[in-house]
Amino acid sequence: MHLSDQGHDVIIVDNLSRRNIDNELGAQSLTPIQTPQTRVKAWEEVTGKKIEFINLDVAKDFDLLVQLFKQEKPDAVVHFAEQRAAPYSMKGARQKRYTVDNNISGTNNVCCAIIESGVDIHVVHLGTMGVYGYGNSGGDIPEGYIDVILPGGRERNILHPAYPGSVYHATKCLDALLFQFFNKNDGLKVTDLHQGIVWGTNTPQCMKDERLINRFDYDGDYGTVLNRFLMQAALNVPLTVYGTGGQTRAFIHITDTAKCVEAAVTNPPGAGERVEIFNQVAETCRVRDLAQMIAKKTGVSINYLNNPRNEAAENELEVINQKFKNLGVHPKTLDEGLFEEVIQITEKFKDRCDTDLIIPKSYWNKNRASTCTEKESLGIESVSSEPLPVK
Amino acid sequence: MHLSDQGHDVIIVDNLSRRNIDNELGAQSLTPIQTPQTRVKAWEEVTGKKIEFINLDVAKDFDLLVQLFKQEKPDAVVHFAEQRAAPYSMKGARQKRYTVDNNISGTNNVCCAIIESGVDIHVVHLGTMGVYGYGNSGGDIPEGYIDVILPGGRERNILHPAYPGSVYHATKCLDALLFQFFNKNDGLKVTDLHQGIVWGTNTPQCMKDERLINRFDYDGDYGTVLNRFLMQAALNVPLTVYGTGGQTRAFIHITDTAKCVEAAVTNPPGAGERVEIFNQVAETCRVRDLAQMIAKKTGVSINYLNNPRNEAAENELEVINQKFKNLGVHPKTLDEGLFEEVIQITEKFKDRCDTDLIIPKSYWNKNRASTCTEKESLGIESVSSEPLPVK
Repeated sequence: MHLSDQGHDVIIVDNLSRRNIDNELGAQSLTPIQTPQTRVKAWEEVTGKKIEFINLDVAKDFDLLVQLFKQEKPDAVVHFAEQRAAPYSMKGARQKRYTVDNNISGTNNVCCAIIESGVDIHVVHLGTMGVYGYGNSGGDIPEGYIDVILPGGRERNILHPAYPGSVYHATKCLDALLFQFFNKNDGLKVTDLHQGIVWGTNTPQCMKDERLINRFDYDGDYGTVLNRFLMQAALNVPLTVYGTGGQTRAFIHITDTAKCVEAAVTNPPGAGERVEIFNQVAETCRVRDLAQMIAKKTGVSINYLNNPRNEAAENELEVINQKFKNLGVHPKTLDEGLFEEVIQITEKFKDRCDTDLIIPKSYWNKNRASTCTEKESLGIESVSSEPLPVK
Repeated sequence: MHLSDQGHDVIIVDNLSRRNIDNELGAQSLTPIQTPQTRVKAWEEVTGKKIEFINLDVAKDFDLLVQLFKQEKPDAVVHFAEQRAAPYSMKGARQKRYTVDNNISGTNNVCCAIIESGVDIHVVHLGTMGVYGYGNSGGDIPEGYIDVILPGGRERNILHPAYPGSVYHATKCLDALLFQFFNKNDGLKVTDLHQGIVWGTNTPQCMKDERLINRFDYDGDYGTVLNRFLMQAALNVPLTVYGTGGQTRAFIHITDTAKCVEAAVTNPPGAGERVEIFNQVAETCRVRDLAQMIAKKTGVSINYLNNPRNEAAENELEVINQKFKNLGVHPKTLDEGLFEEVIQITEKFKDRCDTDLIIPKSYWNKNRASTCTEKESLGIESVSSEPLPVK
């Protein structure tokens, strides 16, 4: 809707897998989200602008994708067609396999279909800050690449080493290697957006009509941390922090996400340039500081749960996002004023919340599962994951 | 057969995809290879040892794979279940997609099935020297890992940067990241064998009975370079060198490949150790030097074709393989004496050769396709691929 609002011709290609996963999990968006058909109709009524919706599985319907590219000749494909939750990707073998199969086939299909179509299409891909490996990067995150000296002494500028913390994050690292290859071999134009954790619910476009409301996930699989905290505050139950809450993460507001995507779309890399990488983040913050901020504002308490995730208990994180600033995108930082919009949403729809879904039920491995289930919610878990070996 | 001969209990799990691809390409092994059923029967007749054969698709039949692991509780899985030819992987969208889908789903399934089974199984995986990126490594290839200094100053020992030259090679780089993740998250024991180009046909085990003869590929897709040269020599046609022949590649004889796999199987990494990486090579050699060696020996001429591959015209390559030497494996180097066995094979079966299949028909990208088809076989092609940017 942001792109359409800015005058771009937009076609949505989606197989609605996210809604199908809701069915699988017995979960649903806190907000009553409409069908895509209703949403594009409402958008046209409100703005006079048309967005087409095509139900197509990017990971499977390759021939239709090629046909679509040949027919529409788009300037860019914004590639979001991936299973996007780390906890879901770690639930069990079925979800690990679905995440890898769907995400890698999808990315490979997008690249192969563009090459096959012969149309010069710029891929704008949603990556993740998680490709860098929280707690293993040294905390200082460059924009995608680092300088190294290879054995034999040659200096090279390479993709930042991949050190993903979940199957989901791993797929984004695999994507990055596919992009590197097709960029080198076929001159494919790619921009990879390594995004932080998104918070907030609606953009100015969503707020034009109730039928355009965005989905809001608060469950242990898909709910991102700040949204979950605000949901818990609305229900007047303790905020659930995993481990010590010493995890430093990067955040960005959903409105800025949309702006960043547009900046990427309108600034493709030149012919022959390598994959462009942006860090799509506004700032970094420790999870426990975020919890304390919300607790102070709302009066709820904080509950420290054993961490179901296999990750460093505490980490530093300092992210460079200069390239977006150079394009004139200055994302908003965490601001209690902005929390109000989320609080209005959680207050308004809290009767739709299934509180059983909030506590995480995906454990990263057997040790985590046994620790978390044995000492459920008893206190801080002290097992830390192994960092990359320090020389 | 080598493992069985050494006293290991072996089960073959194979969906015979390689034979199906022969059907697709209208090609077949130069040697008349028997069905797996006939082969295991012959092996038992000759040696008294039983090898079980199970037709199962590792990339698809996940539940059967888990069941098999639980039932058999193997010490190791030797994971060869991947589409293995770079030219085939570059033929077109269908083959690119098959290679990625089959190889990545297969590797992910093997890892997930082991974790799901709860059995402590060591994965021995066939990687490739191509993960290092010929011509971009500086020519000095360590055993899997390099030291780097990350932004912020922390020293880390990371996987050698991936810089694959084909979709096939890319899948092995993706595999490496999946292994790194499952090793870190679940303690999965993995040994990755980055193999050079295999030459030779039969092992001592194959030679015990004619029904045990190994397959011999000479076609533009699956035929490796030295075997192809010897095939051409047997037919008394010129040896076909792509580009200048300045590509330096690593080689290993097929008998040593079997020995290396056994050394890997019997030396699993310890609990909690990271992914073990071996370079499974005997030596390195320039393709044109190899051609000249065969030309001199056999009297045939050399024809320099335009290079269908997008790769550096000339590269250095110096590979460390100390870890195999430490395990007592001292692979044989290129030796004209050893060529005799291959020459006997190509002479004996040359009437089965379809000479139309020898010339490459897979072009790496559009530029390569137009250059190769326009100036077919006219001379050396001078376009070189872009190396990684040098600072």
